[in-house]
Formats: sequence, C-alpha cells, structure tokens
Amino acid sequence: MPELRRDPIVGRWVIISTERARRPSDFTPRRPERREGSCPFCAGQEPRTPDEVWALRPDGSPANAPGWLARVVPNKFPALRIENELERSGEGLYDRMNGVGAHEVIIETPEHAGRIEQLPVEHLAALLRAYRERTLDLAKDPRLEYVMVFKNHGDLSGASLEHPHSQLIATPMVPLMVEEELSGALQHFRIKQRCIWCDILRQERHAGGRVVLDQGGFIAVAPFAPRFPFETWILPVGHHSSYEETPVDDLLPLASLLGEILRRMSRTLDDPPYNLMLHNAPLRARTLDHFHWHLEIIPKLTRVAGFEWGTGFFINPTPPEEAARYLRGQEPWRPVS
Amino acid sequence: MPELRRDPIVGRWVIISTERARRPSDFTPRRPERREGSCPFCAGQEPRTPDEVWALRPDGSPANAPGWLARVVPNKFPALRIENELERSGEGLYDRMNGVGAHEVIIETPEHAGRIEQLPVEHLAALLRAYRERTLDLAKDPRLEYVMVFKNHGDLSGASLEHPHSQLIATPMVPLMVEEELSGALQHFRIKQRCIWCDILRQERHAGGRVVLDQGGFIAVAPFAPRFPFETWILPVGHHSSYEETPVDDLLPLASLLGEILRRMSRTLDDPPYNLMLHNAPLRARTLDHFHWHLEIIPKLTRVAGFEWGTGFFINPTPPEEAARYLRGQEPWRPVS
Repeated sequence: MPELRRDPIVGRWVIISTERARRPSDFTPRRPERREGSCPFCAGQEPRTPDEVWALRPDGSPANAPGWLARVVPNKFPALRIENELERSGEGLYDRMNGVGAHEVIIETPEHAGRIEQLPVEHLAALLRAYRERTLDLAKDPRLEYVMVFKNHGDLSGASLEHPHSQLIATPMVPLMVEEELSGALQHFRIKQRCIWCDILRQERHAGGRVVLDQGGFIAVAPFAPRFPFETWILPVGHHSSYEETPVDDLLPLASLLGEILRRMSRTLDDPPYNLMLHNAPLRARTLDHFHWHLEIIPKLTRVAGFEWGTGFFINPTPPEEAARYLRGQEPWRPVS
Repeated sequence: MPELRRDPIVGRWVIISTERARRPSDFTPRRPERREGSCPFCAGQEPRTPDEVWALRPDGSPANAPGWLARVVPNKFPALRIENELERSGEGLYDRMNGVGAHEVIIETPEHAGRIEQLPVEHLAALLRAYRERTLDLAKDPRLEYVMVFKNHGDLSGASLEHPHSQLIATPMVPLMVEEELSGALQHFRIKQRCIWCDILRQERHAGGRVVLDQGGFIAVAPFAPRFPFETWILPVGHHSSYEETPVDDLLPLASLLGEILRRMSRTLDDPPYNLMLHNAPLRARTLDHFHWHLEIIPKLTRVAGFEWGTGFFINPTPPEEAARYLRGQEPWRPVS
C-alpha cells in the first residue's frame, strides 16, 4: 500500500510508492517502451490492462475489446489506490496517511505511433471530455479533494510508455502547489476584487507580444515569467474556475486550439518531449471567483539542475516574447550556433 | 543583460537569461562536454576562463597559471551579472529587475576525470572552505541577499561540463523555496521555541532507522518525506544557521562525512548523476534560532514528470528507511526485476 508523507518543514506531501519500486526501469537509464507488439495500450491488447472505466466506442463495441478510439483504465502500477479507508497517523514530528486516491490512464488512440495533435479534432475533443467525465465521477468519492490531469510525451518528459496516453491522479488533499496558486490568486482578489488570470488575459490581449493564439473563446499565451523555454498556457477567455463544468460544446474549440499549439510546438522545436498539466479548482471548491482553470504545456528543452532544486528559481534562456513570436509566426526555431 | 521576472500568481522569480540562450547545447539533446583536451577547466587551460577570484595553490604558484588544486572563477556564461545598479520596474501587473547577482564556478580539481569523493579529505575540506570564503566575500555586496552553492554531477543532473565543478549563484532576493523553508521553520519555532531541524535530529538519532552516518559533529539522514529515492541530508549536529560561520576546523570532519556518503552513493547506485545543494541562511539574517544549515543530495534516478510539475507532489518509489539501510550497510542496491 502506498503511503503519503508530509515534510514537516515546508508541508509538502510525497507519495512513497512501494508498488512502483518493483519496476526496475524506474532506476535504470531507459527510453520509453518501444516494442510496438508488446505494448499493453495497443488495440487487441485490452486484456493486459485493468478493466476500462470509460471508452470512446463509436461502433458500439463491447468493453475491453477492440473497436475503441480511446479508453480510460486504472493504472496497473498506481501511485495511489482507491481501496481502503483513509487513515491518518503521526510519528513524533511527522504526519502520514495511507495512499488513498486514484490513478487512471487515458489511452488516447489505438495507434501506437499516433500523436494527439494529428487526431481529428472531434477525437481530441472526446479526450478532453474524458478528462471532464472522469473528474466528475471521481468527485463523487468524498475522500478525494483534487484531480490532476497530466500528459508526459517523450523520453525526457518522464513518460515510461511510448503509446500516446495521459494520466489522472486523484489525491486526498489539495497539493501544495495548487494551494500556493489558490492563495496567491486569493490575495490578488482580496485587493482588486478581480480574478488574476482575467487581469492577465486583459493585459496580454492589450499588449499582444506574448499571445500565441486567440480563437473560439480560448487563448494560448507565453506567460510573463515562464520557468521553461516555450512554456505555454491555454485558458478560457471567460472566467471559469472548474474545468469539469466546461460545457461539452466548448471542448471542440478547445481541442482545436490545443491541437494547433501542439502542432506548432512540434514543428518549431522538432517534436520536443513535453509535459501538459491541467490546473483545476479543487473538487470541493469548484466555483471560485479568484481561480481560473488553465492548461500548462512545458516542452523539456533544458534540464532542471541543483540551482532550481535548491531555490525554486528557474533559469530560462528564452524570453517568452521570443517564444511567442516563433509559435505565432510559425517561423522555425533555430538555436543560434 | 539577464532579467529577473516575478510570476504574479505564486511570486516565483525566474531568470530570463539571454546570455545563456546563445549556447546551442541548451536546446539540443546532449551529453556533458567529454573532450578532455578541449576542456576549459583542465590544468593549462587557465587563460580560457575569466580570472580566478580564489584558488588553492599549496606551491604558491601565480594566479591563472597551472599549479592549483582548486580554482574559483566567474562563470563565462553567467545567469546573473555583478555589473550595473539594481533597477526595479513594473509592467502593468508584472514586476521585473535587472539581473544583478554573481555566478561563479568552483573548479574542484585539475584532473578532468577526478571525483570529489576520491580526493584527499584535506582537498575536499578546502573546497568547503572555498564555499565559505566566497560567500563571506559576496556578502560584502549590499545588493546581494542570498548565495546558493550547488553541484550538478553527471549527464542527467543538468551538468554541462564533465570536469568536476560546483557553482555558486548570488541573488538580489531570497529565493521563494528558501523563504518557504524559513517560514515553515519559523512557524515551528513560534509554537515550540525550538529549531525544527534540531527536533528532527533528536527524533532521527533516537529512532535510528533513517540515519546513514553520524560522526564528527555531523549527521547524514534520509529525510522522512523525501522527494527522490536516496535523497540524503547532511547537517551539523549542533545548531548553526549560517554555513559561512562554520569554524574552519569543522570543515575537515564535514568533508570526511560528505566524501564517505558520496562514495557509498556511487557504490550503491552505480555512480548516479546527482545534485548537491547547500541550504543556507540569507546573507542579511545569518544568526537565526529557527534555521539550521544543511546539505541536500538528490541522486537523479527517476524523472520529474507532469504530475510533479503540476502539483509539487512527488512520487518516490524508495522508502527512506530502505535507502538508509542500503547506504548504511553498504549492501549493494539491486532493483527487483
């Protein structure tokens, strides 16, 4: 059973995940699983995954059989487990909980060599609907406080399987970084009575230099103080704190913008590894005047080293105005040599 | 000129470093510079680095010539620059400063293939003295608030040069993660009137299961809630908030313990890449009852992925009790297959 432990100094929780320790690949330098025939996420390999909890099956095919376009299954090596009661305990100074939560995999296409940005926009919109529906379903479990949806693409992103997939981890507490975002945004709201992301959008749309794409009620911007080169945020233009309350009809323009941004990144940066994260409101506080859900995409072009780990200070060699210009103009990015 | 920018939501500063953008290796998958003959840190290559600001020259050889055992030089591609006045400016919601600070390289040995843990203990102690003396010197500059000393070893650690070196970055503000550590520790102190690290040491020495080595007034422990497998902290047993006020005589036992820990890590984990960070008190608040300086060593055995970047929650597949047992017993670590 995995265990959640809290650092007594900064209050950060970590998951001590004994299940995952059994995977030797976690400790040896490796590339993602490349053997197409042996991939458990490919069509025809359904019996090798846990039973699906959601699927896109336009042909009405039965669960856990071929015919799907997308499937959501519990992770076979979960970081947190849905079984058991939530138990809290102390050990002197220290705090722990058993690792209750959920860890699911969204298999994005039956094609091993597929890419989400190459899928028809309706297919990508269905994946965005899967994020929404799984979050709504997990919200019914009163032990869960937060759902983080994320995608690791490519070797350096931390992906352990090459087959296109994203993941969802539901936790029994609101993670520290989300709390920090919420509390910074609340501070702004208390002074100004406005959402800070709404303010950012207004300023960015007025200035223009960091906007990458603005269409269909969604906007992609390079943030003013990005940690990573070509870091890009995607936000709804209107104020919405909860992703899962997005009307289904809005998922098509979102998919259209997301697909376009990923295609431009791939073209500009030569198919970079990346992480995509959905920053959402907590499950128990969906409607917030001070929070605005957003996607963050960080291409992995640089390595995080001791300075960053020690200080939380990031060194970013690409001004966001430059990054936005490249992504906007579709001018190919050529590192200066 | 590099620029410091503040994220308006969470208050994190980033360095937008245009100088470093000129290094194409920052954007192409790469291994650290391996060509021994072309390494600017090797003996005989002194003219290729900026002039040294500190050196260990037992033979009394002249500055910037061979004969040294260790040298400190300004970084040729600095993340921050010591020139110019500190200027602050705003842009609507946003805050920026020009990138005033210092960035120095501690070249640890003239031997390209050397390893700090293989150096004589007196040599390693001299490197620890260099950290101390450079910090004391930089503290004289009133624009600087913090000095972060760190070392990146090996490819995956973010090291861009193979030749053994550590680095030091002095910043015009206290970094966010240091502020968070200070504020968490202050909260503990206000309630208990005790340093939280002193409390942790007492509990760890009593329990024993996470202690790796305890000798000469210093202790190495696996923290209760480590972000990374085999993460190890080294602390003085007595309460000291400021590293640079460590008596020079104490650097020999510290070097002895640090060398031993690095040798055990190398043996146990097959020479892993790692980051080493010195967590120190701010320059303008050296004597603090609630802060305790410490070294953090994080071997890079796993990759940080979307979940970690999105939540600040880390998934660690090795319980620290296991890690400490391996590092204590010198039993070789074999991932279960």
